[in-house]
Amino acid sequence: MYALSLVQLYVVYALIQIQGLDGEVDVWPHPQSATSSANYLQIDSTKFVFTEKTVEKCDLLTHAINRTKQLAFIENCAKAGVRGYKPFHNYVRNLKLDHNFKGVLSGIEVEVKTCEQIPHLEMNENYTLVIDSKTGTAHIKSDAIWGAIRGLETFSQLISNVGHHQFVVNETNIIDFPRFGYRGMLVDTSRHYLPLHVLYENLDAMAYNKLNVFHWHIVDEQSFPYVSKKFPDLSLKGAYNPETHVYTPEDVKNVIEYARQRGIRVLVEFDTPGHTLSWGKGQKDILTECYTNGTKNGKYGPLDPSKDNVYTFLEQLFAEVSTTFPDQYFHLGGDEVDFSCWESNPNIKKFMNEKGIKTYSKLEDYYMQKVLDIVKKLDKSYIIWEEVFNNGVALKPDTVVHVWIGSWGTDKEKYWRPELHNVTVKGYRAILSSCWYLDLISYGSDWKGYYTCEPHSFNGTEEQNKLVIGGEAALWSEYINAANLISRTWPRASATAERLWSPKSFNSTEKAAKRFHRQNCLMIERGLRVQPNEGPGYCQCDYAL
Amino acid sequence: MYALSLVQLYVVYALIQIQGLDGEVDVWPHPQSATSSANYLQIDSTKFVFTEKTVEKCDLLTHAINRTKQLAFIENCAKAGVRGYKPFHNYVRNLKLDHNFKGVLSGIEVEVKTCEQIPHLEMNENYTLVIDSKTGTAHIKSDAIWGAIRGLETFSQLISNVGHHQFVVNETNIIDFPRFGYRGMLVDTSRHYLPLHVLYENLDAMAYNKLNVFHWHIVDEQSFPYVSKKFPDLSLKGAYNPETHVYTPEDVKNVIEYARQRGIRVLVEFDTPGHTLSWGKGQKDILTECYTNGTKNGKYGPLDPSKDNVYTFLEQLFAEVSTTFPDQYFHLGGDEVDFSCWESNPNIKKFMNEKGIKTYSKLEDYYMQKVLDIVKKLDKSYIIWEEVFNNGVALKPDTVVHVWIGSWGTDKEKYWRPELHNVTVKGYRAILSSCWYLDLISYGSDWKGYYTCEPHSFNGTEEQNKLVIGGEAALWSEYINAANLISRTWPRASATAERLWSPKSFNSTEKAAKRFHRQNCLMIERGLRVQPNEGPGYCQCDYAL
Repeated sequence: MYALSLVQLYVVYALIQIQGLDGEVDVWPHPQSATSSANYLQIDSTKFVFTEKTVEKCDLLTHAINRTKQLAFIENCAKAGVRGYKPFHNYVRNLKLDHNFKGVLSGIEVEVKTCEQIPHLEMNENYTLVIDSKTGTAHIKSDAIWGAIRGLETFSQLISNVGHHQFVVNETNIIDFPRFGYRGMLVDTSRHYLPLHVLYENLDAMAYNKLNVFHWHIVDEQSFPYVSKKFPDLSLKGAYNPETHVYTPEDVKNVIEYARQRGIRVLVEFDTPGHTLSWGKGQKDILTECYTNGTKNGKYGPLDPSKDNVYTFLEQLFAEVSTTFPDQYFHLGGDEVDFSCWESNPNIKKFMNEKGIKTYSKLEDYYMQKVLDIVKKLDKSYIIWEEVFNNGVALKPDTVVHVWIGSWGTDKEKYWRPELHNVTVKGYRAILSSCWYLDLISYGSDWKGYYTCEPHSFNGTEEQNKLVIGGEAALWSEYINAANLISRTWPRASATAERLWSPKSFNSTEKAAKRFHRQNCLMIERGLRVQPNEGPGYCQCDYAL
Repeated sequence: MYALSLVQLYVVYALIQIQGLDGEVDVWPHPQSATSSANYLQIDSTKFVFTEKTVEKCDLLTHAINRTKQLAFIENCAKAGVRGYKPFHNYVRNLKLDHNFKGVLSGIEVEVKTCEQIPHLEMNENYTLVIDSKTGTAHIKSDAIWGAIRGLETFSQLISNVGHHQFVVNETNIIDFPRFGYRGMLVDTSRHYLPLHVLYENLDAMAYNKLNVFHWHIVDEQSFPYVSKKFPDLSLKGAYNPETHVYTPEDVKNVIEYARQRGIRVLVEFDTPGHTLSWGKGQKDILTECYTNGTKNGKYGPLDPSKDNVYTFLEQLFAEVSTTFPDQYFHLGGDEVDFSCWESNPNIKKFMNEKGIKTYSKLEDYYMQKVLDIVKKLDKSYIIWEEVFNNGVALKPDTVVHVWIGSWGTDKEKYWRPELHNVTVKGYRAILSSCWYLDLISYGSDWKGYYTCEPHSFNGTEEQNKLVIGGEAALWSEYINAANLISRTWPRASATAERLWSPKSFNSTEKAAKRFHRQNCLMIERGLRVQPNEGPGYCQCDYAL
C-alpha cells in the first residue's frame, strides 16, 4: 500500500508541475494561447518517434528534432554523471492506476511548409502544437521552419519524467507566435574575452527561452578579438592575446551555424566612430590624435572623420564583415561619441572649416552618413544606437533604432518612453534595451523589474506600437568573463524573453513566479550553470551543478 | 636577433610581474615584511626538491608540499586541456643571457618545529621565507605547521613560468605573520544547497588567500541538510531532498579534513532559537506554535523556550555535533529572533508568569543562557551573533561576539564602530562582518570598499584593539547556488583577506590594484571560476575557463 500511495502522490505532483496554475501550461515563455487537461499520455522514450513532414529536405528540422530528443527525455541531471553524484530517484512505475491516464503517445509529427536556411528579422515563428489524448497522437504544424523549432522547444518543456525511460505529457492544445519579432541579447566580447563554449551555452539558453537575436558586440575600445582576413593586424595587435583571445573566421562561422540551427540570428556590431581605441593598434592613421595646447599628447580619440583613408578602410573591412555575417542587418553603433579629442585636433578644425561643418555633432553626422552609405552599397540594412537618430542623421527607411538611454537610472521610463515616441512618430522601427541592462546588478529578485517593463507603455498610436519591433537584454562585460556570464545572465534574461514573446497580459510577477522557478530549474537540469533569482529554494538538479 | 630580443623582453616582463611595484612582492595577501631584488634563480620543475625538516612526522607538511608542487609549477591554464583549447605560448628559452640571472635553485627546505594536528584559534601562522641568490638556496622556517602552510602558499606565488618545466624566482626575504588570527568566510548551505565540490573549491580559494576559518552556516529556516546520526529525521524531513541535498557524516568528515590540510578551521553554526523552521519538520514539539486570537494558526515561530524537551533535544544534538566538529568553538547564532509568535502563544505567557520573566528579550536571555550552559558542559567555547551580547546574556569570558549589524546600510560604520567599542570595553573578543556581506552585490569594483574597511577604526584603546581578533566575509546564499558561489565570492573576498592578514598600512586600493588583478588571474590559472572585479581587462588563462 505504501508503494501505491507514493505512486499516486507523485503522479498528482507531476501533473501539477506540468499543468501549472490557472489553466496555464508550464512553458516559458508562455504561449499565446494554451489549453490543457488533466488527461495525460505516457511516452516510452526508447520507442518515441518524431516524423518530419516537409515538402523539401529540411536540415534545420532534423537538427531541431535531434536536440529535442536530448532535451525532452532528460531522466536525470545533466551534470550528475560528470560530478560523480548519484542520480536522484523517481518513484513512479505504474501509471495505469490513475483514471486520467489515457494510454501511450508513440510519436509526434512535425509539419513544416517552407524550410528557409537563414533566420531573419521577418521570419515566421508561428506554430500550433496538439497533443490529443483521445487519438493518442501529437503534431506540431508551422508555416516556416522557425515555428517548428519553437514548437519543439515547447514540446520538450511539456514532458515530465516519471520513471526509467518513462515520461508523461498532458492533453494540450497550443496556438503560439511571438508578440515581438526581434528578441535579442547583446553579448560584449571586447571588455572581456568570452570563449566559444560560453557563447554556445548562451545560445542554448537563448533557444530555451525563444530569444532569436544574438547581438554580438564583438569589438570595442579595449580589445579587437575579431580576426579579419583582410586586416589581420587588427587582432594581432588589438586582441588581448592574438593566439588565445580571438575569434578566427572558423570560430565565427561555427557560432553563426550554431545559432542558425536554433533559429537565432547573429547580428554583429562594429561600433564606430567612438569605442574604437583597440582598432588603432593594428591599423595606422585611423584614430584622431588628441592635442593639448596645440601639441599632440600621445592620446587617441574616435575615428578621424576628416581622413579619407578611414572610409577606404571601413569600406574594405565592412565588405568582409558583410559576407562573413549573413544577416541582412548590421549594427553600426554610433553611441557615446566623445567630442573632446576632435575639438583639440587642429586638422579636424581645418577640415570642418573647409566643409562648412559648424558643430561636432554635425561632424558626427558627416561621419555616420558616409558610413551608412558604405553599408547601403553592400546591400545591408542597419541598426544604430539612438544617438545617431537623435543627431538627425539621414537614415534609410528600414533602419532600426536601438534605444538604450536611461538604462543606468532609477527613472528609466523618463528617457526611453519619449524616445520610443520620437523614433516611431518619424516612422522608424525601434528596439528597446533601456530596461534590460543585465550587467547593472543589484541585490534581490531583480527579474521582476525586467518582467514588468512594457515596451508599449509609451505615448503612441497603434501604428507607432507596431514600429516597436522588440527588445534586447544587454550583458556588457566590464565585470563578466567566462566564469560568470551564464550564471549572471540566466534566469534574469528569461524575464525579458517572456515579456517579448508572451501576451501583454502576462504581466504579474506573482503569477509568473512558479513558472519562472521551473524555467530556472529546467536550465539547470539541462546542464547550464544558472543562478537562482528568487530567494531561498532549490531545484532537483542544483546539487549536481 | 629577433629571437633574442623576444627573450630579453619577456624576461623583463616576467621580472616586473613577480617583483611588483615600490619594492613590494607580488603576493596576496601581502606579507608583513618583504624585500626582493632583480637577481633571480632558475628552477627546473622536474628536478626541484622540497625537503621536510621536522622533529616528528608531519602529514600536514607532506600534504602542503604536494599541493605546492602542483600550484607553483603551473605551466598552463588548468582548464585549457579540459576545454580543448590550445595552450598559450611561452617565448623564453635561454635565461642565461641576462645579467640578473644567478644560477639554479635546486630545492627548498621547509623547517617546522611543532606539528599540530588540528587548526585552532590561537594557531601560530608565522613564517620566514628566504630565497638566497648568492648561495642558490631557499628555506621556509616556521614554529608551527600552520606557518609552513602559509609560507608554501607564498612561495608558490613568487614563482613564474618562463618555459617548458622552466621557472624563475627572485631573490626574496620575507618575514610574515597575520595581523588578525581569525580570518573567516561564512558559507550558508541552507538557503541553497551547495555540493561538496563547491565547498572544496571555496576552501582552495580560501587557502590561496590565507583565510583560516570556514564558518559553516549549515542549517537555517529553509532547509536542514546536516545528517544527524542521533536525529536522522531532521534531514530526512528538513532537507530540500534527503538523498541529494544533504551532508552525510562522511561528507562532513571529508570537508573538515580538506580544510584541516589547508590550515583552515571549520566552525559550524547551529543558529537558534530563531532561524529554525526547518528543524521542526523532523523533530516534533520544539518550535513555538503561533496563535491568532487565542487559537493556533498553523504557523510556527522560534524554538519554544518554555519546553524542557527542547533543551533535552539540544543537549543530545549538540553533544553529537561537538564530537563531529573538532574545533574548540561552536557558533550558536542567536540573531534576529522574532518575538511575535512567542507573544501570541498562551503557554509561553503562562511560563513567563511562573518564572517571573517580564519581557521577551529576557525570555530570549533565559533560552540562550540554558543553551550556553549546555555547550559549556561539552567543553566547547562559543561564538554568538551580537544580539546575544546586546541583550545582556551572561557570557563565558572566552566568548567571541560576532558583529554584523550595519551590513545592509550605506552608513555601516555608524553601527559596527560603537558595537566593537561596546563589546571590547567589556573585555570580550569580537569579530567583524558588517563590512563584508558579499551577498549584497552592487555594480562595479566593490572590492575597494571591502579593502578599505579598517576594523581598528573604532574609538577604543590599544587593549580594546587587541580584542578585535579578526573578521569574516559572509556569503548568505539566498541568491547563491553551485553555479555562482565561486565566481561571486572571488576575488571580492580577497580584499577582506588582505585587510585581515597584511599590515594596516596596506590601505590604498590604487597601490593594491595590480596585485589584486594578479591574484584574480592566479586563481583562474589554478582553475577556479572567478569573476573579474576591476572593469575591462583579461587574464592569461580566462580564455580557458
